[in-house]
Amino acid sequence: MYSLKIRCVAETFGTFWLVLGGCGSAVLAGSFIGYAGVALAFGLTVLTMAYAIGHISGCHLNPAVTIGLSVGKRFPLKEAIPYIIAQVIGGIIAAAVIYVIASGQTGFSLADGFAANGVGEHSPAKYSLLAGMVCEIVMTFAFLMIIMGSTHSKAPVGFAPIAIGLGLTLIHLISIPVTNTSVNPARATSQAIFVQGWALEQLWIFWVGPIIGAVLAGIIYPLLCKNDK
Amino acid sequence: MYSLKIRCVAETFGTFWLVLGGCGSAVLAGSFIGYAGVALAFGLTVLTMAYAIGHISGCHLNPAVTIGLSVGKRFPLKEAIPYIIAQVIGGIIAAAVIYVIASGQTGFSLADGFAANGVGEHSPAKYSLLAGMVCEIVMTFAFLMIIMGSTHSKAPVGFAPIAIGLGLTLIHLISIPVTNTSVNPARATSQAIFVQGWALEQLWIFWVGPIIGAVLAGIIYPLLCKNDK
Amino acid sequence: MYSLKIRCVAETFGTFWLVLGGCGSAVLAGSFIGYAGVALAFGLTVLTMAYAIGHISGCHLNPAVTIGLSVGKRFPLKEAIPYIIAQVIGGIIAAAVIYVIASGQTGFSLADGFAANGVGEHSPAKYSLLAGMVCEIVMTFAFLMIIMGSTHSKAPVGFAPIAIGLGLTLIHLISIPVTNTSVNPARATSQAIFVQGWALEQLWIFWVGPIIGAVLAGIIYPLLCKNDK
Amino acid sequence: MYSLKIRCVAETFGTFWLVLGGCGSAVLAGSFIGYAGVALAFGLTVLTMAYAIGHISGCHLNPAVTIGLSVGKRFPLKEAIPYIIAQVIGGIIAAAVIYVIASGQTGFSLADGFAANGVGEHSPAKYSLLAGMVCEIVMTFAFLMIIMGSTHSKAPVGFAPIAIGLGLTLIHLISIPVTNTSVNPARATSQAIFVQGWALEQLWIFWVGPIIGAVLAGIIYPLLCKNDK
Repeated sequence: MYSLKIRCVAETFGTFWLVLGGCGSAVLAGSFIGYAGVALAFGLTVLTMAYAIGHISGCHLNPAVTIGLSVGKRFPLKEAIPYIIAQVIGGIIAAAVIYVIASGQTGFSLADGFAANGVGEHSPAKYSLLAGMVCEIVMTFAFLMIIMGSTHSKAPVGFAPIAIGLGLTLIHLISIPVTNTSVNPARATSQAIFVQGWALEQLWIFWVGPIIGAVLAGIIYPLLCKNDK
Repeated sequence: MYSLKIRCVAETFGTFWLVLGGCGSAVLAGSFIGYAGVALAFGLTVLTMAYAIGHISGCHLNPAVTIGLSVGKRFPLKEAIPYIIAQVIGGIIAAAVIYVIASGQTGFSLADGFAANGVGEHSPAKYSLLAGMVCEIVMTFAFLMIIMGSTHSKAPVGFAPIAIGLGLTLIHLISIPVTNTSVNPARATSQAIFVQGWALEQLWIFWVGPIIGAVLAGIIYPLLCKNDK
Repeated sequence: MYSLKIRCVAETFGTFWLVLGGCGSAVLAGSFIGYAGVALAFGLTVLTMAYAIGHISGCHLNPAVTIGLSVGKRFPLKEAIPYIIAQVIGGIIAAAVIYVIASGQTGFSLADGFAANGVGEHSPAKYSLLAGMVCEIVMTFAFLMIIMGSTHSKAPVGFAPIAIGLGLTLIHLISIPVTNTSVNPARATSQAIFVQGWALEQLWIFWVGPIIGAVLAGIIYPLLCKNDK
Repeated sequence: MYSLKIRCVAETFGTFWLVLGGCGSAVLAGSFIGYAGVALAFGLTVLTMAYAIGHISGCHLNPAVTIGLSVGKRFPLKEAIPYIIAQVIGGIIAAAVIYVIASGQTGFSLADGFAANGVGEHSPAKYSLLAGMVCEIVMTFAFLMIIMGSTHSKAPVGFAPIAIGLGLTLIHLISIPVTNTSVNPARATSQAIFVQGWALEQLWIFWVGPIIGAVLAGIIYPLLCKNDK
């Protein structure tokens, strides 16, 4: 078992990579690779980190995941705050690096939205707040079900990073047009603080929605498994 | 071993995710990610669920799979009906959620076909009923051969979800233009009851075709393996 | 160990799936999914079959693979002919099924080339015979190196189908524009006998090239490993 | 343990395949498969070789990887020079084969840039030198973190080739528009010596950047793990 400090450093690095890879591919390469390419990128950030640092910190990289696992009794609640802080910091550092690289192209502007999440007129395909909130709740709920299921003691050993990473790809394949897909408050925050304005105003959606979905999964998954005999 | 009730809950949730991810990506993001993106999404729903709930219910998520495995003596026939009911319910719930989210975009209409399966003028590329029926039979036959082969006691342990999930992706890469790809009566039903009209009229194709293919595989695969020595 | 007869049935089925999935996706869905989608489909046919029937027949699905493995002392030479016959038969059955389904769409014509391999004016991007022959030799050489390496006793157990299947995807990502990618005489033959004319005239290229590449790998890979100490 | 000579032959072959598959897909098929297809191709070269020759040479295929692993005490420093020479040779042979095949298409010209890396006016999307250098450093840093993490003794056994290969795909999904993505001096060199002129003038960037990133990871990753208790 690693110290909390080391595990938080790992969470910071991992979330840095999630935002750099996911949001970075959207900002730097989105017009070339399309939403499917961005979806693949987001999933591969988690797949790669889960193999690289999963044995150090558990590789949450996402405050909603940390909270859902705490509710589901898979992670000590008292360590949730340090994990979440580490994740948010990692995301912000990544956003800064994306900003530095993106600024190296003539014509780049944060006003184009960076990779911020949004609903209404800021949803990629103009989905309403209700649609966006339902989508974030349901997607995060399913994400946590995949995480808790694939890391269950009866699931095949070693494959969880594939299921979880490609699960995040799947979630993006469904929902980028709706909210630009958050399911991760640290990812949403990292972009919003650069974009400011509307992105900060809508940021609450991408904390509340994912956390509701994660808490529901944290309650329901254990019920599914408790009757094992 | 879990109780039948718990296993049915798992099948309901899993089929919910299959339809939400597969049909949801088609309805919400299809114009962005293309058929290849939708094909990937369908496969990843099964890959993720097979790791997440495979150890609970076996993760059929498909009445044709349940029937094929029963014929092939891999699943108790008497539990087939509850499984199938659970799957159909899960699919319908997912269709309702897709409907709620999709309705959050101005201009959405069920008359555009949702993600229903069809042949003739309702086939994405206008394939005939004969072509569609042959396609559904052959694709479901191969799907069951992959399922029974990759979960055979001599196949490498733990990899079946990858083979089966990506096998479903492959099936969609081939056949979305023909029938919008069903190979799964629960998936077809979930969309048809929302679209009504032609989709309900053609729904029988997507029960009969997949079940014929699955039954054939349930008969043939065991013959292939019985001479092992 | 299964009987030769059963193993040949498995090779027939497996090659049927390779051609149905690979060439079928090209013929039926190629205009929707692009070369990258077709590349993925070809690879997934092998990935799925390697998990499903690898434990029965070794899952060659390709006369060049059978010959290369024989040269490399991984497969009994005396069983190569039955394997190759079984593979060619499987490919032809698949081509017939593709033909039946494709004919269900108005305007389908074999004169559009089905999924036949070709060079010169029949190369997708008009590559010369020399370029095509070099490409087929080098790609098949690398394919056999991947096969022999990933199934070596020191390689991680169970992962070879992923390496080999995705290796075939990679080969298609590189070389579809050059020859429509064969690296498999059974696949090439299955299409040529439907297209007739130029496809049959150029068919020798797609037996000679892949076999040269496979034999070279069958000779070289064992040299690489023999000095292990 | 294999002799250094055999291991160097494996590195030459593996790097040959990395450049043939990655740069070859860009040159021969890039206009068909897009940046996402090329990204997948690069990653699959490493995934396939890691399973095929990982047990022989460790499958570095990249001078920056060899240097980073030496700094991180995972590879003997005295063998770094022979490895790097073997890698560069393999890359150049691959570039020659790509040139032979590409020349079989009317209108091919090295002046179109082959698959060389570049910044400024030679960056695919015109990113500055500073952006390109930051990008190469950060991407190679993360690549080495993935390599060292996924091959750590506590990481799941056998999965590292998937994490590392798909990690390289991810890196390309992010950064092809910036520098055409090097993160590998052997890959950059192989193309520059064919393109000459500006490609050779900018080649230093693609040695210095990746090596800085790799050395940083070689220093930092062990610090992350040393406090294990």
